[in-house]
Amino acid sequence: MTMTRKQGKKLVKVNDDFWSKKIDVIKNEVIPYQWKALNDELPNTDPSHAIANVKIAAGLQTGEYYGMVFQDSDLAKWLEAVAYSLENQPDPDLEQLADSVINLLEKAQQEDGYLNTYYTIKEPNNRWTNLRDNHELYCAGHLIEAAVAYYQATGKRKFLSVMCKYADYIATVFGKEEGKLQGYPGHQEIELALVKLYNVTENEEYLNLSKYFIDQRGQQPHYFREEAKKREDTKPFWWNDDLAYHQSHLPVREQTKAVGHAVRAVYMYTAMAELAKKTGDKSLLDACKTLWKNVTHQQMYITAGIGSMEFGEAFSFDYDLPNDTSYTETCASIGLVFWANSMLKVEKNAEYADVIERALYNGILSGMNLDGKKFFYVNPLEVTPAVCEHRHDHHHVKPVRQKWFKCACCPPNIARLVASIGHYIYLQEDKELFINQYIGNEARFVINEENVTIKQTTNYPWDGKVEVTINLASDQTFTLAFRIPGWARKAEMTINGEKVDIKAICKDGYVYIKREWQNQDTIKLEFPMEIERIQANPKVRENAGKIALQRGPIVYCLEEVDNGNQLHLISIPNSSKLNTTYEKDLLDGVVTITGEAIRENDKDWNEALYLPYSEKNTKIIFKAVPYYTWCNREPGEMRVWIKGS
Amino acid sequence: MTMTRKQGKKLVKVNDDFWSKKIDVIKNEVIPYQWKALNDELPNTDPSHAIANVKIAAGLQTGEYYGMVFQDSDLAKWLEAVAYSLENQPDPDLEQLADSVINLLEKAQQEDGYLNTYYTIKEPNNRWTNLRDNHELYCAGHLIEAAVAYYQATGKRKFLSVMCKYADYIATVFGKEEGKLQGYPGHQEIELALVKLYNVTENEEYLNLSKYFIDQRGQQPHYFREEAKKREDTKPFWWNDDLAYHQSHLPVREQTKAVGHAVRAVYMYTAMAELAKKTGDKSLLDACKTLWKNVTHQQMYITAGIGSMEFGEAFSFDYDLPNDTSYTETCASIGLVFWANSMLKVEKNAEYADVIERALYNGILSGMNLDGKKFFYVNPLEVTPAVCEHRHDHHHVKPVRQKWFKCACCPPNIARLVASIGHYIYLQEDKELFINQYIGNEARFVINEENVTIKQTTNYPWDGKVEVTINLASDQTFTLAFRIPGWARKAEMTINGEKVDIKAICKDGYVYIKREWQNQDTIKLEFPMEIERIQANPKVRENAGKIALQRGPIVYCLEEVDNGNQLHLISIPNSSKLNTTYEKDLLDGVVTITGEAIRENDKDWNEALYLPYSEKNTKIIFKAVPYYTWCNREPGEMRVWIKGS
Repeated sequence: MTMTRKQGKKLVKVNDDFWSKKIDVIKNEVIPYQWKALNDELPNTDPSHAIANVKIAAGLQTGEYYGMVFQDSDLAKWLEAVAYSLENQPDPDLEQLADSVINLLEKAQQEDGYLNTYYTIKEPNNRWTNLRDNHELYCAGHLIEAAVAYYQATGKRKFLSVMCKYADYIATVFGKEEGKLQGYPGHQEIELALVKLYNVTENEEYLNLSKYFIDQRGQQPHYFREEAKKREDTKPFWWNDDLAYHQSHLPVREQTKAVGHAVRAVYMYTAMAELAKKTGDKSLLDACKTLWKNVTHQQMYITAGIGSMEFGEAFSFDYDLPNDTSYTETCASIGLVFWANSMLKVEKNAEYADVIERALYNGILSGMNLDGKKFFYVNPLEVTPAVCEHRHDHHHVKPVRQKWFKCACCPPNIARLVASIGHYIYLQEDKELFINQYIGNEARFVINEENVTIKQTTNYPWDGKVEVTINLASDQTFTLAFRIPGWARKAEMTINGEKVDIKAICKDGYVYIKREWQNQDTIKLEFPMEIERIQANPKVRENAGKIALQRGPIVYCLEEVDNGNQLHLISIPNSSKLNTTYEKDLLDGVVTITGEAIRENDKDWNEALYLPYSEKNTKIIFKAVPYYTWCNREPGEMRVWIKGS
Repeated sequence: MTMTRKQGKKLVKVNDDFWSKKIDVIKNEVIPYQWKALNDELPNTDPSHAIANVKIAAGLQTGEYYGMVFQDSDLAKWLEAVAYSLENQPDPDLEQLADSVINLLEKAQQEDGYLNTYYTIKEPNNRWTNLRDNHELYCAGHLIEAAVAYYQATGKRKFLSVMCKYADYIATVFGKEEGKLQGYPGHQEIELALVKLYNVTENEEYLNLSKYFIDQRGQQPHYFREEAKKREDTKPFWWNDDLAYHQSHLPVREQTKAVGHAVRAVYMYTAMAELAKKTGDKSLLDACKTLWKNVTHQQMYITAGIGSMEFGEAFSFDYDLPNDTSYTETCASIGLVFWANSMLKVEKNAEYADVIERALYNGILSGMNLDGKKFFYVNPLEVTPAVCEHRHDHHHVKPVRQKWFKCACCPPNIARLVASIGHYIYLQEDKELFINQYIGNEARFVINEENVTIKQTTNYPWDGKVEVTINLASDQTFTLAFRIPGWARKAEMTINGEKVDIKAICKDGYVYIKREWQNQDTIKLEFPMEIERIQANPKVRENAGKIALQRGPIVYCLEEVDNGNQLHLISIPNSSKLNTTYEKDLLDGVVTITGEAIRENDKDWNEALYLPYSEKNTKIIFKAVPYYTWCNREPGEMRVWIKGS
C-alpha cells in the first residue's frame, strides 16, 4: 500500500477484497482496452476515431472527422478514469501517456480557447448553432471534469489551464448580458463540471457561468425553439416535439417530476444540488428535494436503475417500472450517484448514501463483466434471450454484455466511477467526518489542522461487520458520523468494546459520536445481513405478487444457468427457508442464496396452448446470485422479481 | 323474415338475439357511417377521399389523389359489406347507392381493364413497378371479392364483369410465361379473391392465376429484390431487410412458422387452403396444416387475436404473447376466420370451427363498440390507460376505440364479416351438412335436389341449449354433422326426444347423424356452459400463475369500472366460488361472472417504493364481463389474465 499524495490532503486508499479487485480491473483491463478503442486498435469493432479526431483538429494528421458528435467525451472520460487510477496507484507510463494526450488536446485548442474536434474539423463556422442536439457544451464539461481530476491526482496544471482557457472563452459566449447567446446545453454536464472547476480554481466566474446555465434553462422564449428557427429547421423535435427530453420544458425550479433523458436529468440535478450548497439557494434545494423524492420513491428500480423507457433513454411516469423493457442505462445510475453525493453535501441524510450504495452494488456494477472486458449499456431486471432477439420493442435489451459501443458512454463512465470509489466513502465538513460507505480502506484527513488516519476493515458487502480504527498523533475532539444502512433492521456499535445506544443518538440515519478521540480508538459496527424478501409498492404493476431477494446492499437474481429456463414459472413460497453460502470460487467470490421453490404448471401440456386450470407443481431448490454478477457465466434467462406465494 | 334469394340456393337468415343486433348495427350504423367517411363527410376526421379518388380517376372530377396507396380497398370492403347486408335484408336505396359506386368504378377502369385510382391518377406510367409496397394487387383482390359478393347477393353482373376484365388483364401481365412479370403481391389478398371469382365464373384462368401467385412466391432470384434494383431503390427493406414480412422469404410450401405481417399471412394461408381443396395439392395442404398448428397452438391469444408484435403488425415467435403490447389487429382475427373456414372445407375437423367461434365472440367483436360507432384496430388483453399515454412502446395500444383511422382497414373488415356471419354457420358437402356454429337462424339448402329447411333456436352464446328442427317436403336421407364445441366438457343430444350416444359416433369433433330425416324432426343439443378457469401453456411467460375466465365461447375480462383500478393487484383464488348472472340491461345483455377475489398488498405504504414483504390482503367481490364488450362504459384499466392463487 502506498500513499501517493502529499501529506495534508484527504487521501483514501481502498484496500478491501471487493473494490480493490474492481479498481485493479479498471487499471489493468478497462483503461488499456479503452485506450486501444480510442486509437482504433480493436479488431471487429466500430472505430472510435477519438484520438484521430484530436490529431486532425490539431493539424497533426489529415483526414475526416468520424464518430458521434460527442466523441471527444469518450477521451475525456478516459482521462478522468486515468486520473483517479493514478491517484489510487502511481504509474509513470500511464501518466506519460495521459500527458501526451493532454499535449494533443492543447494543440487542438483554437486560438480563442475553443476546443471541440467535431466543429473544428467539420463545421468551423457553425459553432454554437445547435446546442439542442450537438453536445458542444457537454464535451466541454467532460473535458473540464477530466482536467480537474488530473490536476488533483497529479498536481500538473497544463490540462487545467487548457480547460480554464476554454471555460473563459465559453463565458464570453454565453450569458444574460447583451450580445451573448442566451443558450444552454442540450445535454447537461458542463454545469456540474464548472462547479468542480470553481472548487479547484476558486474563480467565481465559473460558478456564475454554471448558475447562469441552470437559471436560464427552460425560460421563454425557448432558446432551442428560437435556435431551430435560426437554423431553418422546421421539423418537430423528434421526441414527440417535447423539450422535456432535455429537462428544458420548464425553468428548473418549477420542475417537480423527473422527465426526459435520465442521464441529462441527473447530471443537471447534481449541478443544482452543488449550486444550492455553494450559493445557499433554497429554491434550488427545494426543487432538488422534490425531484429526489420523485426519482427515488416513484421512478427507481430496486437496483437503483433509473430511466424505464427506451424512447429517449428516458424517465417514464410514476411507478412505471417494467423489468423486461427497462432502459436503466449504466450512466444514469452513475449520474444518480453523483447527484446523491451532492445532496449529501447539502443535507446529511443517510438516505442519499443508501441510494449510492444501492446503485454501486447493483445497477452500476452490473454494467461491466467481472473481468472488465464487456459492458451493458442497458441493465434490465428480466431477460429472456429469445425476446431480445425477436421483439423489436426489446431490441435495446442485450442478453449478453457487449465489447464496445458505437455510443460508448457507459464503459468509460464506469471506469471513472469505480476508479474514484474512494471519493464516496467519507464526507468531511470541518470537524465532522461522515462515514457513508463501508469499504475496507485507509484514509487520511486533516482535522483541527492535524492528520487523522481512519482505517476501515470489513468484508462488506458479504458481511455487515465493520471495524474502524483511528490513528492520531495527539488526542483530538471531532465528530464521527456513522451511517446506519437503510437495509439494516438491527445495528450494533461498540467503542473500544463499550456498547453504544445507537437509537438514542441516531439522526437521519447517522450515529453522531463527538468525543475526544485517542490513538487506536476502535469502533466496531455490526449490521446483521438477513435475507430480505422485498416487495414493491403496489402501484408498480409489473411486480404485483412478486418478491425480490436482497441481503445487505446486494439485490439478487435467478439465472438460467443455476435454475433452468422458464424462470417465470418459479415461485418462492413465504414459508420456504432461505440459506446463504459464501462461494469463494464463484463469480470472484459471492454469497449465494438457496432455498425451496416451486416450479409451477408442470403438467403434460401435449402441445395445448390453453387448458382448464389444474394445479401441478414441482418442488425445486433455487439458487440466487448477486444481480451485478449476472451473465458472467453461460448466458440465458435472468430475473430479479420472482413470484412469491 | 323475408327470404330474398331464389329457391334452390343456399340461404341463411340469422334471427337470434345476439347476431341480429350486430347485423342491424352494421346495416344501420356502420355502413352509413362508412359511406360518409368514404365521401369525406365526417367532421374532425382525416378525409378518406376514396370516392373522390375514383371520380378523379374516372375523369368526372379534377383534383389530386389523396390517402393511403390502398385507399381503393376501403371502398371495396364497403361494397362487400353492402352486398352481404342486401343478402340479409333487401334495401333498394342502398342497392341503388352501391350501383352508383359500381358505375363510377366502371368509368375509372382503363381501356385495358386496369383499375387502380392511385396509379391512374398519380403514376400512370409506373403500374406494377413496386409490388412489394404498393398494394395494387391487394386492391384488385378486394374489388374482386366485393364484385363476387355483390353478384351473389343481387344477381347483377356489371361489377363482376368489370372485375373479370381487370382479372383478365392481370393474367396477361403476370405469369411464368416469357414476357410476363414473374411477380406477386406484397400484400396477399388477390389469391383468395381469384378463387372466389373462379367459383362464380368457373373460368379456370382465375384459379391458375391464383395458383401462379402462390407457387411463385418466395422463389429465387427474389422478385422483390430484383424489382427494387430496377427501381434503383438501394435502401434495405424497412423490416430489418427481412422479406418474411410478406411471407416471401421462402416458397410457401417450405414455410413452417407463421412469420411477418399477420393479416398478409392469414390471407395467404386462406388462399393456400382453397387451392389445396380445388386442386387436391397435398403439399399445399400439408403446409397449411403445419402453419395452422403453429398459429393456433403457439401464437394465438385466448381471444383468437394473432400478431403479437407492433413492429410490422407481425407474428413474433412461439409462445411470445404479451398482453399489454399485443398488436392483435382486428383484421388479423378476421383473416384467421377466413383461413379456418377454408381449412374446414378441406378437412372436417371441429378445431377449425372452434377457432372461428373463438375469434368471432372475442378478438373480432372487441374491435367494434356495441353501437357500431367506434373501432379498435389493436385488441390488447391488458390495458392501463396511463401506460398507453406515456410509453412510446405502447403507443399503438389505444385505451378507447377510435372513430375512424387513417389506415381504415379494420372497420369495413368487421362490417363485411359480421354482415356475412350467416356464411359461417353451415357447410354443405353434397349429402353432408355440417353445423359449425350455433346461431339462431333459418336456412334453406338443396339436398338430393330437394329443398331442406333447417331451423336453429338458441340463446347462444349465453346458454348452450340448441334446438334444430328440420323441414322437409318429403323424407330425405342425408347426414347432419353437429360440431361439439371444444370448450364443452359434456354434451348431450336427443333426436325427437331420444338420447344419442354422442361419444360413440363423434369423429374429429363432429357428431355425424345419417338417417332418413322426416319433416319436423327435432334435434336438441345441450352443451353445459360452466365457468372455466383457463391456464396458458407454461411457455407463455406473461401468463405464468394467471388464469382467464371463459364460459362457453366467451372470454371474460375485468374492467376498472366494475373493480376499481390497479387490476394487477386482484387475484382469484382457486377455492373461490364463481357465479353467473344474465344482466339484460348491461352491455346489450350479457352474462357476467362474479366471485370472491383478493386485492393484494393493500398495506399502508406511506410513500415507500420497496419494503420487506408482509402479507396484507383484502377480500373483495370481483365482476367480470365479456371481453368483447370492454370499453363500452367508462374507460379505464382492463385485464383478461388475472392472477390465480
